[in-house]
Amino acid sequence: MKAGPSQEEIRRHNLGTLLRHVHIGGSMSRAVLADRMGLNRSTILGLVSELASVGLVREELPRDTGRAGRPSLVVRPESDQVYVLSFDVGVERLTAARIGLGGVFLDRRETRVRPDRRDAGEVTEVLAGFARQMMDTARHGTNCVGVGAAVRGTVRRTDGLVRSASYIDWEDEEFGAGLTRRLDLGLPVAVGNEASLGALAEHLRGAGTGCQDLVYLHGDIGIGGGVITGGQLLGGDCGYGGEIGHMVVNPRGGRRCGCGARGCLEAEAGERALLEAAQRDPSATGREAVRAVIEAADRGDISARAALHDVGDWLGIGVANLVNILNPRTVIFGGTLREVFLGSAAQIRSRINSHALAASRENLRLRVGELGDNGVLIGAAELAFSTILAGPLEALARTTP
Amino acid sequence: MKAGPSQEEIRRHNLGTLLRHVHIGGSMSRAVLADRMGLNRSTILGLVSELASVGLVREELPRDTGRAGRPSLVVRPESDQVYVLSFDVGVERLTAARIGLGGVFLDRRETRVRPDRRDAGEVTEVLAGFARQMMDTARHGTNCVGVGAAVRGTVRRTDGLVRSASYIDWEDEEFGAGLTRRLDLGLPVAVGNEASLGALAEHLRGAGTGCQDLVYLHGDIGIGGGVITGGQLLGGDCGYGGEIGHMVVNPRGGRRCGCGARGCLEAEAGERALLEAAQRDPSATGREAVRAVIEAADRGDISARAALHDVGDWLGIGVANLVNILNPRTVIFGGTLREVFLGSAAQIRSRINSHALAASRENLRLRVGELGDNGVLIGAAELAFSTILAGPLEALARTTP
Repeated sequence: MKAGPSQEEIRRHNLGTLLRHVHIGGSMSRAVLADRMGLNRSTILGLVSELASVGLVREELPRDTGRAGRPSLVVRPESDQVYVLSFDVGVERLTAARIGLGGVFLDRRETRVRPDRRDAGEVTEVLAGFARQMMDTARHGTNCVGVGAAVRGTVRRTDGLVRSASYIDWEDEEFGAGLTRRLDLGLPVAVGNEASLGALAEHLRGAGTGCQDLVYLHGDIGIGGGVITGGQLLGGDCGYGGEIGHMVVNPRGGRRCGCGARGCLEAEAGERALLEAAQRDPSATGREAVRAVIEAADRGDISARAALHDVGDWLGIGVANLVNILNPRTVIFGGTLREVFLGSAAQIRSRINSHALAASRENLRLRVGELGDNGVLIGAAELAFSTILAGPLEALARTTP
Repeated sequence: MKAGPSQEEIRRHNLGTLLRHVHIGGSMSRAVLADRMGLNRSTILGLVSELASVGLVREELPRDTGRAGRPSLVVRPESDQVYVLSFDVGVERLTAARIGLGGVFLDRRETRVRPDRRDAGEVTEVLAGFARQMMDTARHGTNCVGVGAAVRGTVRRTDGLVRSASYIDWEDEEFGAGLTRRLDLGLPVAVGNEASLGALAEHLRGAGTGCQDLVYLHGDIGIGGGVITGGQLLGGDCGYGGEIGHMVVNPRGGRRCGCGARGCLEAEAGERALLEAAQRDPSATGREAVRAVIEAADRGDISARAALHDVGDWLGIGVANLVNILNPRTVIFGGTLREVFLGSAAQIRSRINSHALAASRENLRLRVGELGDNGVLIGAAELAFSTILAGPLEALARTTP
């Protein structure tokens, strides 16, 4: 337990907090900032001037306000001037984006993954190529202030070591360190689990905005999870928290999971379970195949309906457990689970009602993700922005435009 | 997101932090405090003087240091001067304690609960009687600075409303408000769930000291849970988080739980499940009955061994799920689960090894609670101390000795 901050630390905190307000909330007036931060207007003026002098924000007239009279200036984040690089090592594609302060997509690249591109060195090469292309097209004199990357697996918080990511056969892969070296930008690459980053993104910019306690469930090849509690991403001891897909819901006679155990939520309610239960061609996988099952169920296809019913049952039990353990306000379904939720919401709700405590579920909201495929990239970008938001001037001074 | 603190807030924070250091860590020198708080010695001297002037700490020569030379003074919390009242509405007894700054038990009272003492008004009367007796024996001029109480049920964080506590048939019982009125000390009674408070106690003073991410499992009539993540008690949206006993581990054909669902951890691994599986006389319940099963298993009794094996299986699955979801460093077994863990540790570990992800479990430690029956009282006391630790001078000024 440390003592309170010094004057210098308070100044840094206030600059970072002001920047975070416009980064997340968009352009707003100094009066609004004064109100939200609990500071007087002259202090806000000083902070805005300091951030403007280094090119992090600009004051300008708002776009058409729709109101009569002279409008106040608003403080706008300099999205073209200050950006991060964000990478997503997906199941079917590698994706990269250049994202400006304020969360604006300035550039986006992707490539379908060939089977020979699963080697970490090859993945790193592709991502480094995207980084070079995206930085080459950036305006001269602009600043890259961070790099984030998402992987579907367990990622050690301290150094971005990927402990395990079975879809690409990585084990103890020094992906963060390798990509940092290869990019050579003087910025450490922050690596996170894709569903944890999806949770962060939905919390800051999506279906969980303003909600301090939420759970995000992300479906693609498996089921990933991310937990926000008290406004913070739950990492646990080493950053491996949120592995909701490996919660055992059916230990006796459950289906074999990729992790080696039986009856994991992912094994019972994941993509493969749904497609098998719906008696689909085993070679068809991915989002299109999931959509096809849901559309078939809508049309009355009996095996598709039974499959959705089954999967909804297990998902409902899994969510009920999370409601009992974590008492979230919101549970968000993303990735392919977005479609699965829309197709089996009644079943999921029914299971929650029978398995979650009344008090814990009474204010619960079930939602679908609002950020779609970009959620993971947005979350990785927020990880990358965290340094400049913690100390804007110091972080900017360390970058070379 | 608020601006950084004012000078006045920093001063308050520093006084509270210093007090918390000696409250939790015991007597320590100003040099140690300076080091731990990152402040220089003259600032520490000023803070200590201010706290000493209002009777919250005292400087004195340490007890025998075992070292040669002139020892430094140590700063000691004034345990006799400043105290809280702590209550535990248990299954078999009502317990109360007067606990001094530093966590010292100054007084402790308990009574076995008669069936007619389950009405909230009656419980409140008994606790108020204990409070009066304990305060009457306190030295004149000493200060009661807080009141905390523990209940086995879901408790709303904002106002101590007990949403549900089936063992005493309470539903939406205004216990916190009622006890506050009855005590009439000008101090709001802080009410919490017993296992959450047990978690807090073990985190601050027991088997989880120094550990920022832990899960505490408490067995008595049911199975309660408490989660500490990033050093904070996980409450969730309304404070109902940690209901681990109602995690469903056996949804198909599982045992009926008191909550109405099937296959909850509490139904499969709680006291009743153990005693029934061991074919015990159904009228024998409580800790003695659990101990008898474990002793019988030690002696080779086959049904007792099978019962422990079964219960260990379910506990192991439950803990594996928590490890995957929360990535704790430590899992602590308290109440009757202390004995159950000691009797079935191998089974629990084996299930964790087969159901928890390798990365998530590699640093996991399984421990038994160190605080015994006093853990819940200690946790409720810490809840009660939180006001004075947040702003010592302000909180003290509001009390009348």
